[in-house]
Amino acid sequence: MRLRDLGERALLGKLAPIGYPLGAPLPPGDDAGGVWVEGVAWLLKTDGFLYREVALLGMRPFAVGFRGVAATASDLIAKMGKPLGFTLGLFLPEDLEEAFALELVEGAAEAARRLGACLLGGDTNRGQEVALTVSGFAYAEAPLPRRALPGDRVYLAGDRWGRTGAAIAAHYRGRDLEGFPLIQEAAFYPLPRLELLGLKGLLRGSLDSSDGLAETLWQLADLGVRVDLEALPLYPDVLAFAGGEEEAYELVLYGGEEFEAVLVVPQEREEEVLLRAQGVGLPLFFAGHIGEGKGVYFGARPVPRRGYTHF
Amino acid sequence: MRLRDLGERALLGKLAPIGYPLGAPLPPGDDAGGVWVEGVAWLLKTDGFLYREVALLGMRPFAVGFRGVAATASDLIAKMGKPLGFTLGLFLPEDLEEAFALELVEGAAEAARRLGACLLGGDTNRGQEVALTVSGFAYAEAPLPRRALPGDRVYLAGDRWGRTGAAIAAHYRGRDLEGFPLIQEAAFYPLPRLELLGLKGLLRGSLDSSDGLAETLWQLADLGVRVDLEALPLYPDVLAFAGGEEEAYELVLYGGEEFEAVLVVPQEREEEVLLRAQGVGLPLFFAGHIGEGKGVYFGARPVPRRGYTHF
Repeated sequence: MRLRDLGERALLGKLAPIGYPLGAPLPPGDDAGGVWVEGVAWLLKTDGFLYREVALLGMRPFAVGFRGVAATASDLIAKMGKPLGFTLGLFLPEDLEEAFALELVEGAAEAARRLGACLLGGDTNRGQEVALTVSGFAYAEAPLPRRALPGDRVYLAGDRWGRTGAAIAAHYRGRDLEGFPLIQEAAFYPLPRLELLGLKGLLRGSLDSSDGLAETLWQLADLGVRVDLEALPLYPDVLAFAGGEEEAYELVLYGGEEFEAVLVVPQEREEEVLLRAQGVGLPLFFAGHIGEGKGVYFGARPVPRRGYTHF
Repeated sequence: MRLRDLGERALLGKLAPIGYPLGAPLPPGDDAGGVWVEGVAWLLKTDGFLYREVALLGMRPFAVGFRGVAATASDLIAKMGKPLGFTLGLFLPEDLEEAFALELVEGAAEAARRLGACLLGGDTNRGQEVALTVSGFAYAEAPLPRRALPGDRVYLAGDRWGRTGAAIAAHYRGRDLEGFPLIQEAAFYPLPRLELLGLKGLLRGSLDSSDGLAETLWQLADLGVRVDLEALPLYPDVLAFAGGEEEAYELVLYGGEEFEAVLVVPQEREEEVLLRAQGVGLPLFFAGHIGEGKGVYFGARPVPRRGYTHF
């Protein structure tokens, strides 16, 4: 079967278990992989992308490099990993300007720096178009898998929900983001939140959201539970950009590139989680709860599964 | 300036220091990067390549996946790192057969397994042609940089010298490797040598060789010393394949893809290194010594610098 017909999710499902160790801190197919070393989980993550597929209108190589490190870091942090360093694998056309490559790497370095980490080199190869992979490693004393039990609460960390979706919509419609500074910032400099590490030991589970909230919630439901949304964050600028509630919800659910986390909180820890999040300055939005069954619902309406896939 | 005019070495020289931490266990531009965590060096390495640039005649996706992990592992091991796990960043055309992708990853898993490590997932993206990056992490109690002092001895570890060069030459000349099993094995399954870790604490410095021996020795000379070769390994099969000594030396010096290590040994430790290498079963070949000055010489003749670069 060709990859186009198989689909990315099915392909990843087949590839993820190959060579993956038994008894690892996280199961295969989770947001990052890892091994135990003397009671501490060491996590490794690689995320790759084509430049033209993520560079929005007005985005310079600096922001694309920044975004690359952010994407990989977001997965590590969602697993309660403290990122230590990142490497870049670059495919570059030979007629590319040197300044472009330098700026790309400077942006990656800036994201690493803002996460208290560093760049640790990488590799360059000739390629037909600009493509990057960013790898990062982290240690986690209490690695947090994707996990949920009926009765748990679902929270959304961060404040980029709908904003990155708006920026992507603006790009494809040739609309500029003048007057929407938070939308532009969310898409151009989506810094993952180290504050999440302040919730260590309190959560049931966590998932990085980068293929869109709906897809992320469906991946949660794939664990064998039902996700019942009771509310979604509708920021005034997202609403203003979208022009209507229905359109704004669409951006929140199907935007993608948030690099935020969906958190699963045991009911008995809810109060402590909220206090701790407030203490470290992490925005949390109560979105719903986990039930028995399957699927993702917003009120009584099923949330269709349509996320971004590469094949 | 365009990358084509700048050249890969100059580009890497400019990119390597960006965002690289001060006081790291290895300097920027070394075979791997790393950070100290509680007195232990944690190393991270990424190496990328286009499938068509490394797949020799008769090489299946399995061997190419194997080669990918081997390349990254070789850098980590040359720095005295014990590899723990690897991730793959895959760019795949959408009309590629699923079986191809699975085999590629199976080969990578086999190399990881033979190194006592594992695969820790990765990422897939659509690309115009098959491209891979392999990232790996390792810990090193005594990380070993590229380093040399006048008076030191130069040894070549392993037995792939000239053999991988012969396999590459065979590929480009459409010649088959029937009758040259060690040459084929060296190129198709170049397993880096964990035995190198048995020399921990005894060496002055070490360099991974993957762009060819001459280029690797030139990188050693770039540290501000002169490399004087007194001998080069000429295996009977390489000699037979090449058809003459001159041609065989060419393969040894300019072959590439060895994934072996060039070791720099302080004179006073030479005996202990040889004993220890024998004890762990690591082939070592005495190649020459380090002097004051610059450049690379074989006897009185300068060794020209011409290695493989991507731009």
